Amino acid sequence: MGKINVGIIGSTGYVGVELLRLLSNHSGVHVNAIGSNSFVGSKISEIYQGVGESSDLVCMTNEDVIEKSDFIFTALPHGVSEKYVIAANRLGKKVVDLSADFRLEDEKELKKWYGIGFIDKGLHEKCIYGLSEINREKIRRADVVANPGCYPTSISLALIPLLEFGSIKDSGIIIDSKSGLTGSGRELSQASHFVEVNENVFAYKVGNHRHTPEIEQNLSKASGTKVRVVFTPTIIPVNRGILSTIYCSKEDGVSIDDIYKKLTEYYSDCKFIEILPLGQVSTLKNTRYSNKCAISIHENNGSLVICSTIDNMIKGAAGQAIQNMNLMLGFDEEEGLKYIPAVF
Amino acid sequence: MGKINVGIIGSTGYVGVELLRLLSNHSGVHVNAIGSNSFVGSKISEIYQGVGESSDLVCMTNEDVIEKSDFIFTALPHGVSEKYVIAANRLGKKVVDLSADFRLEDEKELKKWYGIGFIDKGLHEKCIYGLSEINREKIRRADVVANPGCYPTSISLALIPLLEFGSIKDSGIIIDSKSGLTGSGRELSQASHFVEVNENVFAYKVGNHRHTPEIEQNLSKASGTKVRVVFTPTIIPVNRGILSTIYCSKEDGVSIDDIYKKLTEYYSDCKFIEILPLGQVSTLKNTRYSNKCAISIHENNGSLVICSTIDNMIKGAAGQAIQNMNLMLGFDEEEGLKYIPAVF
Amino acid sequence: MGKINVGIIGSTGYVGVELLRLLSNHSGVHVNAIGSNSFVGSKISEIYQGVGESSDLVCMTNEDVIEKSDFIFTALPHGVSEKYVIAANRLGKKVVDLSADFRLEDEKELKKWYGIGFIDKGLHEKCIYGLSEINREKIRRADVVANPGCYPTSISLALIPLLEFGSIKDSGIIIDSKSGLTGSGRELSQASHFVEVNENVFAYKVGNHRHTPEIEQNLSKASGTKVRVVFTPTIIPVNRGILSTIYCSKEDGVSIDDIYKKLTEYYSDCKFIEILPLGQVSTLKNTRYSNKCAISIHENNGSLVICSTIDNMIKGAAGQAIQNMNLMLGFDEEEGLKYIPAVF
Amino acid sequence: MGKINVGIIGSTGYVGVELLRLLSNHSGVHVNAIGSNSFVGSKISEIYQGVGESSDLVCMTNEDVIEKSDFIFTALPHGVSEKYVIAANRLGKKVVDLSADFRLEDEKELKKWYGIGFIDKGLHEKCIYGLSEINREKIRRADVVANPGCYPTSISLALIPLLEFGSIKDSGIIIDSKSGLTGSGRELSQASHFVEVNENVFAYKVGNHRHTPEIEQNLSKASGTKVRVVFTPTIIPVNRGILSTIYCSKEDGVSIDDIYKKLTEYYSDCKFIEILPLGQVSTLKNTRYSNKCAISIHENNGSLVICSTIDNMIKGAAGQAIQNMNLMLGFDEEEGLKYIPAVF
Repeated sequence: MGKINVGIIGSTGYVGVELLRLLSNHSGVHVNAIGSNSFVGSKISEIYQGVGESSDLVCMTNEDVIEKSDFIFTALPHGVSEKYVIAANRLGKKVVDLSADFRLEDEKELKKWYGIGFIDKGLHEKCIYGLSEINREKIRRADVVANPGCYPTSISLALIPLLEFGSIKDSGIIIDSKSGLTGSGRELSQASHFVEVNENVFAYKVGNHRHTPEIEQNLSKASGTKVRVVFTPTIIPVNRGILSTIYCSKEDGVSIDDIYKKLTEYYSDCKFIEILPLGQVSTLKNTRYSNKCAISIHENNGSLVICSTIDNMIKGAAGQAIQNMNLMLGFDEEEGLKYIPAVF
Repeated sequence: MGKINVGIIGSTGYVGVELLRLLSNHSGVHVNAIGSNSFVGSKISEIYQGVGESSDLVCMTNEDVIEKSDFIFTALPHGVSEKYVIAANRLGKKVVDLSADFRLEDEKELKKWYGIGFIDKGLHEKCIYGLSEINREKIRRADVVANPGCYPTSISLALIPLLEFGSIKDSGIIIDSKSGLTGSGRELSQASHFVEVNENVFAYKVGNHRHTPEIEQNLSKASGTKVRVVFTPTIIPVNRGILSTIYCSKEDGVSIDDIYKKLTEYYSDCKFIEILPLGQVSTLKNTRYSNKCAISIHENNGSLVICSTIDNMIKGAAGQAIQNMNLMLGFDEEEGLKYIPAVF
Repeated sequence: MGKINVGIIGSTGYVGVELLRLLSNHSGVHVNAIGSNSFVGSKISEIYQGVGESSDLVCMTNEDVIEKSDFIFTALPHGVSEKYVIAANRLGKKVVDLSADFRLEDEKELKKWYGIGFIDKGLHEKCIYGLSEINREKIRRADVVANPGCYPTSISLALIPLLEFGSIKDSGIIIDSKSGLTGSGRELSQASHFVEVNENVFAYKVGNHRHTPEIEQNLSKASGTKVRVVFTPTIIPVNRGILSTIYCSKEDGVSIDDIYKKLTEYYSDCKFIEILPLGQVSTLKNTRYSNKCAISIHENNGSLVICSTIDNMIKGAAGQAIQNMNLMLGFDEEEGLKYIPAVF
Repeated sequence: MGKINVGIIGSTGYVGVELLRLLSNHSGVHVNAIGSNSFVGSKISEIYQGVGESSDLVCMTNEDVIEKSDFIFTALPHGVSEKYVIAANRLGKKVVDLSADFRLEDEKELKKWYGIGFIDKGLHEKCIYGLSEINREKIRRADVVANPGCYPTSISLALIPLLEFGSIKDSGIIIDSKSGLTGSGRELSQASHFVEVNENVFAYKVGNHRHTPEIEQNLSKASGTKVRVVFTPTIIPVNRGILSTIYCSKEDGVSIDDIYKKLTEYYSDCKFIEILPLGQVSTLKNTRYSNKCAISIHENNGSLVICSTIDNMIKGAAGQAIQNMNLMLGFDEEEGLKYIPAVF
């Protein structure tokens, strides 16, 4: 009858504080413990002034969080997270891991892109990839969920159905993603200094962004063959939001109307996914401050052009994590995530 | 047991759509009707694409909204609103009016600043000014509430207690307010064209902004004498938020610590008001996307400097309107408004 | 010995006022007359307050401008410009036309995309397309120059050499361009309202932007075959700047080092073109408030990825027009355009 | 007949690179040497990519810069600058110092606010405070000029004449200044992290900003009595620009028309100062990317309200330094600074 106690490990990063914000409105859970390596003993309101009086939570060690809470979110950098997931799992506590540690199924890929290996192979096998709409039933029964990356979420939700249908070719896929700055987190760097970013736009890690293998893993599964993509992430001067513009080729004989119909049907029971009517264009306004993914499809000189948008901090991180928690704990999938997008 | 039917008149302006967004998360009411003069017959999602599938609401006439709903929000320009408030009141439906029509008690001031008079004087006398924390008990019993302006909210919440205490002088009050662009609404103008606003900042209506008499009315009541202020509104290139920087003089013998203590006590039972610890500065981050007002107080060369921030669309408009509705309908004052501020 | 008298027709649009700004610093010419259909009799400083006391110029009719000046810039919407170009040409005055009227050589394309035809076919044949670095010698001898569009400039300067070399395939070219808001001009619209643009990003005219035939004309000439492209323009919340991200395929056996070397050589005598060292990424900061075009080249999963940036108001409009005027009048090509980019 | 060799010490900060940009367009001088403590041996284009091929300058030691150049700009933090100014002066080279080291005449004030004292008292006495329009004739004959701070420039240019006239009271002056982020320089900090600044506005150093004594020194000189001010600097999310909103009281019998007339006359021979016609409001657009200061005056409830704007990097730093150099070297005062403001 009381609320379930939820703990956040890595609570002082942007994802952690967004979890805190979204959960402040959840009817069935209560954040009872927050962990931080660097701020043990500090009140969260000392770190994020905005959180203010709303929270008297004091940072404790990650180990204490695991002990005190019944459900755990780990919002840590890759390479640091797995050991806490293991610890929580051993105590029988369900976990949504927001790091990259459990996202890739192929340990070789993890080594190649992140320089780390698996600690507990069995746990990796049991872990479910938390793209909620795609793996919904598996997530309901999961003990450990690997929450997807932000870019992969925006891209996979658009392309997985089309590849499963066989509506598009699995080669020649080009993805030009635009992301706001919260995706780069709270760490200071020249590339996130206001004067450098404001009135600017720039591609980064061209050809070597770490979300590439995650995107390719998802698309390959849907396609049944090894899919490779050209992926260019680009920073735009906004706080939140991702627009992935995706270029691909329809299979012969497939019309855009076919694709629209099938896609709409595919997501007919998914309240967070919106396929825009043909002729409309998906923008960040379709998803800001909401857990939605909004997809529009277009044709141009024979190519299919898809605009897929999410709020990178919500559907791309904290919101999808809560959606997964809702599934794992048997809550309504939308609980705590009901606000429609903020058009401004 | 079912949800109460709520109607919004003037639903296609920014305030109307923000009411819709915030109420999408309210557990006790349901928006069943929306009105618009210009868009009768249009779905709201055609006007605000972001609202999307979340809403199948179709704009009807304002008269129909009054008939079909049990509680009414009027979000109309001044001069247009009063007749709908009267109509709703005659049918026994409670109303929160977000226009300026009922804010000023002195009809002469209304004529001077807005060029309009009272239609129904009796209703003006019964109407309660909806500064929730100040008039909470009266609002609980009110049939018609005049929702305050955005600038007056940010300023009055800071100054009313200090004037009531007699802690500050009631002359020489200077207010330099900075506001985001949503305050100017959806209407197109050179002054809200992106290229004109971005990378710019500008004072406007220096010496003649219509919120001046409302501010002076509130402060005069608190002080017991006629208070006049110097008020300069300034546009800054952000979507949401007001920072009012207020300069005034302490009464002799009053210390900033006294003021801090009294102010904190004054608002001790007000979850939406946060008095920051001395030494901290209130910024838009303390209130964005929340119904909070955050106040910090400072000293400088003998003057008291106060920084008061709100989200102009929430505590400065739609949020405070819902807070008032909650009081009028007997809901928890915080219902639907529980999210803590979004620090980004 | 005195300065040459220059006139600007369409002086009250953004391109007109940018011409005025840049020419305020030119040692050899002097703006003696400005024309405007809507503002005849108004001082330019009444329309653009920033221009201020710097200019006492009063708008006159376009006909008067042509009569009073020795060199003419026409900065008018398409369909309105040609008649003034003809008139100026008849009076023996050289013209740079910044509209689209003379950009397309094929009248059918002009009709298809802009709904207008040629008035004076002979003049269209004599007119030179003003991509300065590509047509420099022809421009020196031209009487009428058609100043290129902003997107085509950023794209053509990168791709023309590669197609001429035969280094890339002429099919499968995909262009994802990001542009600031000055490109949309001074006209008010929902799509340029601050609140709609700020914290947003959106593709527009997907598959049907009018710069498409101009891009294809330029690339087809370079390639020797009919080239078709997929072009998606996207609005980003900045005032100035275009980043065109271009995806294409190298011809077999061509390395990125080859391309880098050839491209660098191709532009070796072009001070406004900068080919960034391999490994660097071209951003808006490389070109803001300057007449430069900065190009970086990259590889990704077998594709060539090119980032080409310009300031859309300078190299993409007023600056290139002045560069062309310099060539036509025998000035140093860089005169009045010497500022290096403003990195902030 | 050749250009004069100019050196910049502290060339890698924002002010240094802005000097480099502005001087790229000066007809009479040439930057032949740049100094940096942290980057000796690096090309400037490695630090500021945008500067690009335009410059092959390589950072050398500050001592070498002094030796190799004929005129020196020092753009260093306070406390570091004086010794280089002394060294340059000993070698007979004129200097404009952009640090705070020489701005305050009273060593006690320097100690109190900056924690440092005078090294060479004689040089401090000879040094001229470089508010160009106020001290123009002294600057022409100066060997060392202390370039004013950005906030003090915007405030002093507005208030000095009014205090000299005796048009306003010298007590009760309140200044609410809004500044863009370039004022905080290139150093990384939480307060300049994009996500913290974007969509935010915040006062800082309320009651203790180091520009306070410089403002008070300037106003006290003009008034003839010790003037104290209430000064609140506020960060707004733009790259460049300061708007100082100044509140003060007219002396009895003085009208705003008197003030307007006198002020206009006072600056009649100053091309960089623009007094806007009564009724207009000075905005950042009046001065962006130019060396101008634009001032508008207003009345409100008996108070005088002044809006004074500058580009903090130009009139507030590098531009005024070049204006001073022009005076010291006998160039036209406007040389290299002729561009009118960029209204976008």
